[in-house]
Amino acid sequence: MESVYRTHFATDCTKELVGQTVTLNGWVQKNRDLGGLLFIDLRDRSGIIQVVFDPDVSPEALEIASKIGREYVIAVTGKVVARAPENVNPKIPTGEIEIQADQIHIFNPAKTPPFPIEDRTDVDEAVRLKHRYLDLRRPKMQETMMIRHKAMQSIRRFLDQHGFIEMETPILTRSTPEGARDYLVPSRVNKGSFYALPQSPQLFKQLFMVAGMERYFQFARCFRDEDLRADRQPEFTQVDIEASFIPREQFLSMMEELMKTLFKEVIQVDIPTPFPRLTYQEAMEKYGSDKPDLRFGMELINLSQILRDTSFKVFASVIAGGGQVKAINVKGCANWSRKEIDNWGKVAESLGAKGLAWLAFKEEGVKGSVAKFLSESEIEAIRREAKAETGDLLFFVADRPEVVADVLGELRLRLGNHLGLIDPNVYRFAWITEFPLLEYDAEDGRYYAKHHPFTAPVEEDIPLLETNPDQVRAHAYDMVLNGYEIGGGSSRIFRREIQELMFKTLGISQEEAKEKFGFLLEAFEYGAPPHGGIALGFDRIVMLLAGRQNLRECIAFPKTNSASCLMTEAPSPVDRKQLDELGLSVKNE
Amino acid sequence: MESVYRTHFATDCTKELVGQTVTLNGWVQKNRDLGGLLFIDLRDRSGIIQVVFDPDVSPEALEIASKIGREYVIAVTGKVVARAPENVNPKIPTGEIEIQADQIHIFNPAKTPPFPIEDRTDVDEAVRLKHRYLDLRRPKMQETMMIRHKAMQSIRRFLDQHGFIEMETPILTRSTPEGARDYLVPSRVNKGSFYALPQSPQLFKQLFMVAGMERYFQFARCFRDEDLRADRQPEFTQVDIEASFIPREQFLSMMEELMKTLFKEVIQVDIPTPFPRLTYQEAMEKYGSDKPDLRFGMELINLSQILRDTSFKVFASVIAGGGQVKAINVKGCANWSRKEIDNWGKVAESLGAKGLAWLAFKEEGVKGSVAKFLSESEIEAIRREAKAETGDLLFFVADRPEVVADVLGELRLRLGNHLGLIDPNVYRFAWITEFPLLEYDAEDGRYYAKHHPFTAPVEEDIPLLETNPDQVRAHAYDMVLNGYEIGGGSSRIFRREIQELMFKTLGISQEEAKEKFGFLLEAFEYGAPPHGGIALGFDRIVMLLAGRQNLRECIAFPKTNSASCLMTEAPSPVDRKQLDELGLSVKNE
Repeated sequence: MESVYRTHFATDCTKELVGQTVTLNGWVQKNRDLGGLLFIDLRDRSGIIQVVFDPDVSPEALEIASKIGREYVIAVTGKVVARAPENVNPKIPTGEIEIQADQIHIFNPAKTPPFPIEDRTDVDEAVRLKHRYLDLRRPKMQETMMIRHKAMQSIRRFLDQHGFIEMETPILTRSTPEGARDYLVPSRVNKGSFYALPQSPQLFKQLFMVAGMERYFQFARCFRDEDLRADRQPEFTQVDIEASFIPREQFLSMMEELMKTLFKEVIQVDIPTPFPRLTYQEAMEKYGSDKPDLRFGMELINLSQILRDTSFKVFASVIAGGGQVKAINVKGCANWSRKEIDNWGKVAESLGAKGLAWLAFKEEGVKGSVAKFLSESEIEAIRREAKAETGDLLFFVADRPEVVADVLGELRLRLGNHLGLIDPNVYRFAWITEFPLLEYDAEDGRYYAKHHPFTAPVEEDIPLLETNPDQVRAHAYDMVLNGYEIGGGSSRIFRREIQELMFKTLGISQEEAKEKFGFLLEAFEYGAPPHGGIALGFDRIVMLLAGRQNLRECIAFPKTNSASCLMTEAPSPVDRKQLDELGLSVKNE
Repeated sequence: MESVYRTHFATDCTKELVGQTVTLNGWVQKNRDLGGLLFIDLRDRSGIIQVVFDPDVSPEALEIASKIGREYVIAVTGKVVARAPENVNPKIPTGEIEIQADQIHIFNPAKTPPFPIEDRTDVDEAVRLKHRYLDLRRPKMQETMMIRHKAMQSIRRFLDQHGFIEMETPILTRSTPEGARDYLVPSRVNKGSFYALPQSPQLFKQLFMVAGMERYFQFARCFRDEDLRADRQPEFTQVDIEASFIPREQFLSMMEELMKTLFKEVIQVDIPTPFPRLTYQEAMEKYGSDKPDLRFGMELINLSQILRDTSFKVFASVIAGGGQVKAINVKGCANWSRKEIDNWGKVAESLGAKGLAWLAFKEEGVKGSVAKFLSESEIEAIRREAKAETGDLLFFVADRPEVVADVLGELRLRLGNHLGLIDPNVYRFAWITEFPLLEYDAEDGRYYAKHHPFTAPVEEDIPLLETNPDQVRAHAYDMVLNGYEIGGGSSRIFRREIQELMFKTLGISQEEAKEKFGFLLEAFEYGAPPHGGIALGFDRIVMLLAGRQNLRECIAFPKTNSASCLMTEAPSPVDRKQLDELGLSVKNE
């Protein structure tokens, strides 16, 4: 072997190369004896190729090859030969050829891995995370990492072409009063002081606008010390984008083009633009969610008007008390068994409903838990409103609007899944707009900003800030896809008088505002342009592009729900000396 | 004005647009009255354009414009008109035209900034850092940020095209025993435990190779809690690159192509390849530095052999004691005054020399501090060795080799600068190779790895590990440019027996190795490929591309030498509640 290093990747070896001598490098996927021959499946990043060791070609190579095992790292030199037609394997790109080895070199032996390097594995996730370097060898993980890479390049290329400048913001920064809990980093030079890891570069991105950079982006690492849910990570990556002097419509359509380009380039899917838009109100009304999955219908139907005067007390009293009666139409399921329907009732209760009423439009007539309480004309009105046909099943929830939305929204998703109504190969984007600017906190007796206090109100609602704050809509927009919020943005307040009005509405005094947001407010006095932007959840976008179910599958070295890394065993105790240098001590509890 | 938003950037407005109506957005650079007209220089990210307000065109616009000041954010609509030939300003791209304004809109007023938004400013750096959002408005800073952006895109494009996959590694990770001090992040969930911020993704990049990713890169944020020197930052960005199954020569030439492409694309400079190579020994011998500035000569001349038997005791005793006598030839400076020469002597002493001897080859003969102590034949031999001509001045240092290298190496740089020998528009790359693998620490009585304990030794030196560890050369290479180390890399140890030999040489027991590097060593048992890589200092590369003198000029929001941010005032005290949640207390000292 002149050089042991590869001349070709596995999948470079096609029928066109038959007769050529190549050197391949990679890992042994499997090896098997067959009629005096030894077959090795060699795996590299490109894929898998079959190598044959034949005593008539090289007994020396066969001798060495016979001693190696799975995951050995080897180099093989040999001739590309066509397989006999009956041996062609159409499942792999190299299936028409094989390599007739005449030399082999062992770079490194390998212990038997704790789980096979294959997509199908039932091994516990904890074992996979502990040996992440082996888990990442599995084809699906390699593909996901490749999709992540391609997505990064595609987004960057698009933003670069549209005049956005990539700029980095500090990781060691200042604790900001923005909601979630900060990760802190003690300062050694300035003992007793702390840096904070950024929850997002929000203030820095706005400062870039004040600095006249006009169009900025960054793949920003963000940190939140929250109690983790299944689809959260303590550190995550967001595509942070901000622009000045661009009308909102132009910015939104630019973001639509970004996603269109991304999905086309990475997974060859055409995304129609413009994206449909729903106001927050509409989304909550129709889907019980501000991140609706639009791949299927089964919209929530509001029957409160129709049933306002019903003699059925349960419904009537809910409606009279400011609540709602809403239903979903489960098409074609009128014949579900009582048991099946009861099971869905239990689901509804576990989601917070007091109960799940139902009506089944059967051939033989209308049945159901509320059939006998409703008049014929009410049932007819419901049938019309719900576009119910014979064979359809209606589920009803009567409760406060929030509960109705939560329960029917989630029930809709689960029923959609259960009934196979959700096509995993379809991508339905939408913008959700006109979020409420403020939320009232009854406990504190004051309003809080729903996003952050720099989100601009819709112009025509500005007068309402002083009279009806809860009716003020924000100039905010979420990008949703298939039931996930994948981005959130807004136009920002850039004029001082609006900002002051906002603080006044929030009950924040001038002194308090200065203490909390001082340097940003000062910056805004030196000529802030009109600006706005968006933050895209990159990990989640990769998850959707790769068709994965879990954020951990889309991050090379993720953390568990208790924010630890099973491979490195971070976090870990440190030397007393290190704490002494920081002037800190750990309290014994 | 239909819309106040821009139709064009300032520098889009060229002579071709004369007669068209455009809307521009930006900041007021300056405004001045002239003969009843008002002129405003409007600045946006693209550049500056002149806007004229004329009472005959729009008295209303003139009225508004007359009330605005510097750094106001405005929109202007008007016609592009050609300037009269005598008014053409060839210094700016828009100098042939101006905008005849008929409408103006004020987005935002501005307070007068604490320093003018111009490149030439003598304002204190602390003021600039406090108001970084204004400092970043200055053209030179915008240009530097743009170069940084372009460099990022260029490097990514190249690596993507060469099959490297961009992957992210954790920022919240485990404290690693690698030399510098870690920044720590206390864990709330696991009180008393800490994450560490990565000093580099070294272990993760090697794990990617074990994982079969084969070619990886990342713009990685790295952190070191060191006492800072002028050109260090607590957080910095490195281009982290690692590859498997690539011969070293091929990898180095790929990195040369990367730099060639980068300099061509970003600053249109042709870099010749291959880069010259110097061994560490050669670099130290000729330039007294392992990061030589090769833009000029003035190499160090070793005279120890020639002067070994000199009767001049000072030189002779140094040489006899294992020291060196070396000189540099300061061409054409024989006529420097005594005072001038003495000043350089003081510089040499401040750098650690006991003194600076000199010889001047004047028309009238050889003068100098050591002229009378050296024989005529010695002086002749020196003249020949130093290629000294009449008019040349030689500076000598006699001392231990390290001192000679330090002093003459630095003196060479300062003289080069002083004499204008260093062309700022020239870029001289080189590889420095064959670094020593190990350094002996007399205090601890043991060897330490000069880079890290995973750097591979040169194959033929492996037997020396057990006999002459100090003679073992590393398979390490630094990329240097104009006197800066801009990258460092190596082939890594990937075979277990070599790694064990390395630990043995370092006096690290198996148990200790397992405790310190456990998960990496375990990973290496499952089939590690031959691999190696490099880390490029991105901030410094931007500094050289942009022709800046200081890393802080190349980072959007840098920290001071005491690791603080003057704008956000990070680090800062935090609430007791936050510390309580982390189970920490600050010691009063």
